[in-house]
Amino acid sequence: MPGAGILILFARRKKTVPYTYKLDHPQKARLSDYDPDYHAGMRKEEAEEELAYLRDELADLQELLYGAGTHSVLIVLQGRDTSGKDGTIKHVMANINPQGCQVTSFKAPTPDELAHDFLWRIHRHTPAKGMIGIFNRSHYEDVLVVRVHRLAPESVWKKRFDHIDDFERMLADHNTILIKLCLHISKNEQKERLLAREEDPAKAWKLAAGDWQERPYWDAYTEAYEDALGRCASLQAPWHIVPANHKWFRNLAVAHTLVETLQPYRQEWQSALDETGRKALAELRGVKARLGEG
Amino acid sequence: MPGAGILILFARRKKTVPYTYKLDHPQKARLSDYDPDYHAGMRKEEAEEELAYLRDELADLQELLYGAGTHSVLIVLQGRDTSGKDGTIKHVMANINPQGCQVTSFKAPTPDELAHDFLWRIHRHTPAKGMIGIFNRSHYEDVLVVRVHRLAPESVWKKRFDHIDDFERMLADHNTILIKLCLHISKNEQKERLLAREEDPAKAWKLAAGDWQERPYWDAYTEAYEDALGRCASLQAPWHIVPANHKWFRNLAVAHTLVETLQPYRQEWQSALDETGRKALAELRGVKARLGEG
Repeated sequence: MPGAGILILFARRKKTVPYTYKLDHPQKARLSDYDPDYHAGMRKEEAEEELAYLRDELADLQELLYGAGTHSVLIVLQGRDTSGKDGTIKHVMANINPQGCQVTSFKAPTPDELAHDFLWRIHRHTPAKGMIGIFNRSHYEDVLVVRVHRLAPESVWKKRFDHIDDFERMLADHNTILIKLCLHISKNEQKERLLAREEDPAKAWKLAAGDWQERPYWDAYTEAYEDALGRCASLQAPWHIVPANHKWFRNLAVAHTLVETLQPYRQEWQSALDETGRKALAELRGVKARLGEG
Repeated sequence: MPGAGILILFARRKKTVPYTYKLDHPQKARLSDYDPDYHAGMRKEEAEEELAYLRDELADLQELLYGAGTHSVLIVLQGRDTSGKDGTIKHVMANINPQGCQVTSFKAPTPDELAHDFLWRIHRHTPAKGMIGIFNRSHYEDVLVVRVHRLAPESVWKKRFDHIDDFERMLADHNTILIKLCLHISKNEQKERLLAREEDPAKAWKLAAGDWQERPYWDAYTEAYEDALGRCASLQAPWHIVPANHKWFRNLAVAHTLVETLQPYRQEWQSALDETGRKALAELRGVKARLGEG
């Protein structure tokens, strides 16, 4: 029974060290309180081994979620340029069944999107029951880049913290499990990564001049992130600040957070799935009798 | 250089045995000409080993496709109930980056969808450049279930073969690579699979009474499939009839077909990606000079 081993491993680690900094109620957040280099004292090989376990566990939980069809999972991925949003999706979701997972990347809004409220384009991509939705950037950009670059006046973006809280509460009330992840890197690590892209021809296609142009706004983004994280943290929609200077630890921390959040639903999903099966069997007996099959 | 080994293995196999029955021009198709039990003389272990190689190759090609951003890939999955559409997505796409892949399952149309032409709901889900789109069922249902159950008169569905040809040609003209797969099982294999779902509590939730109710229409579906496959086969939008009685061979055949179709674009995508990198670097130099960075 390999499943049991995973559970024990998981439970053991879980108790000893947290992997992310979790904000589950409104508070004054200060990014400098959180170490982007943190790696829970682990070595890379150790982390990769555990990640492999967690990915299997996640694939397993996804199958239950999909079959049960009682909940949606919404993963919100935020973080500065180069913080590893794409890499996280690629490495953590590697074993996920694409049929049960929808990734939406929110770019600069189109004129049509700008002609609506800021949640309009977001809402149409929230995951259906049984599905995992991943937002690569999200409605939080409307209190981040919009604030930093003054794309809307303060009187507009300031109200959005409440709008976001209300929206997320409504989603949670409709059985959406929200997991909000902020990938946290240092200014120096960002520079290293930008330079690495320039030096490696295989990575150069990802270069965007805009990434360098945003660097002078580093502190303004810090302030905006601190408000967004601290203001929009709640029990049903907590933020996880993920130490992300070490990519291998970032992947582990994200996988761990997902499994830790979804694990408690395992029994409930299994029961829902069994119940669906029982009902389908009963209905089938009637149909087959009428058809003279079986 | 592990890549070279894969290529050699791939090229060698490719020449000796075809894995699917390919229709690349209009013709009279007869499903009874194709053996759903076919497995190219392979053993299961051998097939799984090759599948592992092909999945890596596919992940690699996907990354190039995504980075190049010059083409879209549209995989159309059709097949009778229990033919393995879900299983194919799960097992063949296991290493795919979900960020570059969008699966759309087309169910019975909603009233809003029915108030439009049959391609309306399809068109909004065709993949963007750089993306792989997977259709789990598709516009072909409008000449299959619609025909079998007389949901539209013959005068309506008969014209759809032309509509589909035209639509797919338009997509191909806009750099969409179309891969249409028909999972081919026998009537007896379907019965076995339906019974297996009834006996295995872990599979019972997938049961649908409708699956048994469709069995009396087996021959009507055969006729409808034969017309759809034979009428809508072209060089840019070929059909692959996939022997699907053996799940392990079905997975291999699908993976092989995908890699075989995408492999010829490798060089072109690599060049496009390199070119994007060069341009980004040049632009960056100007920006950084202005910012006094680097």
